[in-house]
Amino acid sequence: MTNDDEMAFEMALIRRAAAIEVLLRRLLDDRPLSGEIARPDRLMAAMRHGVLNGGKRLRPFLVMESAALFSADGEAALRVAAALECVHCYSLIHDDLPAMDDDDLRRGQPTVHKAFDEATAILAGDALLTLAFDIIAGEATLLPAERRAALVLALARAAGAGGMVGGQKLDLEAEQAAPDEAGIIRLQAMKTGALIRFACEAGAIIAGAPAEDRERLAEFGSAIGLAFQLADDLLDLTADASQMGKATGKDAAAGKATLVALHGVNWARSQLHGLVGQAHALLDPYGDKAALLKEAATFVATRNS
Amino acid sequence: MTNDDEMAFEMALIRRAAAIEVLLRRLLDDRPLSGEIARPDRLMAAMRHGVLNGGKRLRPFLVMESAALFSADGEAALRVAAALECVHCYSLIHDDLPAMDDDDLRRGQPTVHKAFDEATAILAGDALLTLAFDIIAGEATLLPAERRAALVLALARAAGAGGMVGGQKLDLEAEQAAPDEAGIIRLQAMKTGALIRFACEAGAIIAGAPAEDRERLAEFGSAIGLAFQLADDLLDLTADASQMGKATGKDAAAGKATLVALHGVNWARSQLHGLVGQAHALLDPYGDKAALLKEAATFVATRNS
Repeated sequence: MTNDDEMAFEMALIRRAAAIEVLLRRLLDDRPLSGEIARPDRLMAAMRHGVLNGGKRLRPFLVMESAALFSADGEAALRVAAALECVHCYSLIHDDLPAMDDDDLRRGQPTVHKAFDEATAILAGDALLTLAFDIIAGEATLLPAERRAALVLALARAAGAGGMVGGQKLDLEAEQAAPDEAGIIRLQAMKTGALIRFACEAGAIIAGAPAEDRERLAEFGSAIGLAFQLADDLLDLTADASQMGKATGKDAAAGKATLVALHGVNWARSQLHGLVGQAHALLDPYGDKAALLKEAATFVATRNS
Repeated sequence: MTNDDEMAFEMALIRRAAAIEVLLRRLLDDRPLSGEIARPDRLMAAMRHGVLNGGKRLRPFLVMESAALFSADGEAALRVAAALECVHCYSLIHDDLPAMDDDDLRRGQPTVHKAFDEATAILAGDALLTLAFDIIAGEATLLPAERRAALVLALARAAGAGGMVGGQKLDLEAEQAAPDEAGIIRLQAMKTGALIRFACEAGAIIAGAPAEDRERLAEFGSAIGLAFQLADDLLDLTADASQMGKATGKDAAAGKATLVALHGVNWARSQLHGLVGQAHALLDPYGDKAALLKEAATFVATRNS
């Protein structure tokens, strides 16, 4: 990859994030949706606090770029991307709660339970998760019902007890009894991997692409999901708090089992290199159209915040 | 209504509850669903604790009977009913949390955060909400994708910020500043009404019934939702804890604004009578086929636990 590719990726990421921001802001305003009585002001404010926080919007980017790979409708992809970001942000709100990771800061801002209160944070998370399925299932998503139902199902699988939420549970249990290597890999594939895998797979579903493309994109998602977590563990060890906008060194301080702690920094960097190569190879059949997605894989593995 | 009608209803309620119990138990076992890596044991145990607790399964009953009114597929209705019960039970798990209503008992058993811990209770609720959409969207629900998507959307509207979760937020705010009568009605229509309304409307969606039937069933659901809450407020005032399996007299002790507190017990009983009449009238066009649903309306208004 050249510097030009890197710059093209960074500009595309910013452009996609801006589009997502506009849609999320609209979806999270105070107007009731059809069939609703009202949406309480403070609840909506808490949801906005948890979502409109200047995130990089990596998962939405992956949805939109994987959809573009198959020339899918951009508006439909944007809505699915927004729904996925609602799920991601709900998970952060709940993970930050005192009963969970007990974090006061997120991107340099007070977490939702700090800016509001614990009950409101729980409900804001619940409402965001619910809203995600509302967004995908609605006809405004401009997809045949078959694809909307398939997206709801795939997202629910990725986010539920056998995916993200299950991974979070394993992560909490890992604080009591350190998992072995297989346990760490399973935990990470569920906690962070499942949603990133869904992000990439979603593009193929939105486009109604053949099953083999859907599977290929899902595998690409799995590879960069692994890379994402490895890079995160590396950053926790090597970055400082101002760079990350959240507390760092927490894993080591908590004696937390990570693959980096198990095998060392050099091993992790070499693994990352391998995963990026694997991710790129999976996209080779799509030629130049996959350039931005390939660059996303590189970015995930080498990001410094 | 005669005693025979009442007995037929009670037997039907028990029969439906038994069918739901079998399906919920199967949906909440430890086997991973397709596309999942695993479902952590303790998380699944917490979900089962929150769901398989001997509830009356009133909402599932309403789904199944309203579906039967339009001769819908019974298996499809059963699955949608199970999904709705997952949403209802998730809301109870989260409502019981220390940061919310802080309840130790539910149906005479320890609440999920008491039997397990707070983090597990939060995650079990999250996973149940997610599972509900998984169940409805899946092809095993045996409905055309159009209806599965419509059910996901209607459930998300009923459960989200403009429905149940929004109502819970308003309920928490009502402890700080007592709402006026309109505020109480809005709060209750959202907190308990929206899901009961969905239960009745769902039958028409499952059956693919015309819009006017869907609207009629939804109105029936609204009427019994109101009756349900009035009866609940009455019970809180007049029943004892052993009868309810949970603490009573809490509303009065907390100086909580309810319509019963505002207008008195006699007014509430007369209102209940009127709501039951209204609910029955809405079902008149369906003749004898609606007998059990009508009896359900009576039951909701006159139940003593």
